[in-house]
Amino acid sequence: MGRWEPDARGRMRAAAIELYLERGFDETTVADIAERAGVTERTFFRHFADKREVLFVGSEQLQEAVVAAIIASPPSLSPLETAATAMEAAAALLQDNRDYARMRAAAIASTPNLLERELLKMSTLSAAAAEALRTRGVGEPTATLAAETGVTIFHVSFQRWIGDDSSGDFRQEIRDTYAQIRALTG
Amino acid sequence: MGRWEPDARGRMRAAAIELYLERGFDETTVADIAERAGVTERTFFRHFADKREVLFVGSEQLQEAVVAAIIASPPSLSPLETAATAMEAAAALLQDNRDYARMRAAAIASTPNLLERELLKMSTLSAAAAEALRTRGVGEPTATLAAETGVTIFHVSFQRWIGDDSSGDFRQEIRDTYAQIRALTG
Repeated sequence: MGRWEPDARGRMRAAAIELYLERGFDETTVADIAERAGVTERTFFRHFADKREVLFVGSEQLQEAVVAAIIASPPSLSPLETAATAMEAAAALLQDNRDYARMRAAAIASTPNLLERELLKMSTLSAAAAEALRTRGVGEPTATLAAETGVTIFHVSFQRWIGDDSSGDFRQEIRDTYAQIRALTG
Repeated sequence: MGRWEPDARGRMRAAAIELYLERGFDETTVADIAERAGVTERTFFRHFADKREVLFVGSEQLQEAVVAAIIASPPSLSPLETAATAMEAAAALLQDNRDYARMRAAAIASTPNLLERELLKMSTLSAAAAEALRTRGVGEPTATLAAETGVTIFHVSFQRWIGDDSSGDFRQEIRDTYAQIRALTG
């Protein structure tokens, strides 16, 4: 890929989200996105399988970060602490793009088709986290329960982080939510 | 609706799941389902919006049972106990149809399109449970955390219940999973 491509990719993502918020996902075509981003449709399809995938390009890196953090975490941590710490690693990846995260969340919340895909990605993330916990010797159902609870912590913290009352520190939101989920079962 | 219709409905659900497992969701048409169930396509569309919805007709009753159980639960229960108890009410609705539940789960697991819809229904269930907890005076983020953890308990217990090692008692699986999630955070 040429040096200009990361910019084109960023422009296509921004253009897509703007258009989904302005006129709706169903009413936006790939041609519209390409036009606004100043690229050809062919360029669009070199980067993204379809107009839905534009919003999900980061999810593999997110999953890799979570799995790597679980594998690397100290054995002294409990399964749930391990999962929560791994969600902090995911949060760190998003930290610098809060405005983008907020717009993306708004586009997803208003489009069932996008929300379904987001939920599938979160479910895949949870399964990968459970698998990573099992490779560390955590048995079932503990691995799955810890992984799913970790994803719950992630997404409740995400909603708080993009909210207006947040300090803007995503990792701190994760730590606060983790404390609250412990209080819930204490 | 005539008295014969509940049977036709059951036949269409069974026919749809059989066909999804035999030849795949994408390769099954509404005409195939109607033919196997011995009804017309018009009858199919009187009952279901599309071939995906056939598998999701029970989700409203499930959600109503969960919300009603939360509203009716004793105020002495903690938010998470309330959510877990409500999941027992949902489990009771499915208890007598384990074979159907198992086939439906297999069809859903093998079809991303169906899995996405299932995840959306679970997300809607969680939001409704959180709303019911808030009407009982539970604040945020506790209401959302308890509701999401309740749905995690439900679905981990569901997987155990349809597994071969289960005693077959879905409510008991819920109670066991609840105990395990408490141990996780203890």
